[in-house]
Amino acid sequence: AVVATELRCQCLKTVSRIDFQDIQSLKVTPPGPHCTKTEVIATLKNGQEVCLDPEAPLVRRIIQKILNNAKSS
Amino acid sequence: AVVATELRCQCLKTVSRIDFQDIQSLKVTPPGPHCTKTEVIATLKNGQEVCLDPEAPLVRRIIQKILNNAKSS
Repeated sequence: AVVATELRCQCLKTVSRIDFQDIQSLKVTPPGPHCTKTEVIATLKNGQEVCLDPEAPLVRRIIQKILNNAKSS
Repeated sequence: AVVATELRCQCLKTVSRIDFQDIQSLKVTPPGPHCTKTEVIATLKNGQEVCLDPEAPLVRRIIQKILNNAKSS
């Protein structure tokens, strides 16, 4: 599914736990005409898409970890 | 382009400036078999995709702003 072009909210339910090692990429979408909520969608290495709670501290930690890895490489 | 399934690095060059208002979504990809670099790709409201420098403080600020908006809504 080409999520970016969907014109509605993508996340019906969110999970609050995820294994960092399973994440292939993480997409953060601010509210817009298509959806009034902030959405965080993780694409897993097995191809599955999982919605994360944008308010969960875990999400910030995952993003910080990814960006910090960029610095050290 | 369905970027998630591409099996190579997506970002040949990165920009260091971007207008928050132009961003439709932001995708963060940690290094993996497809690419040894961390990549941050912004999809703009006009459909354009722009690569951002993952080490740029701007990227952290944009993500924090998006996540903070989630909290206040």
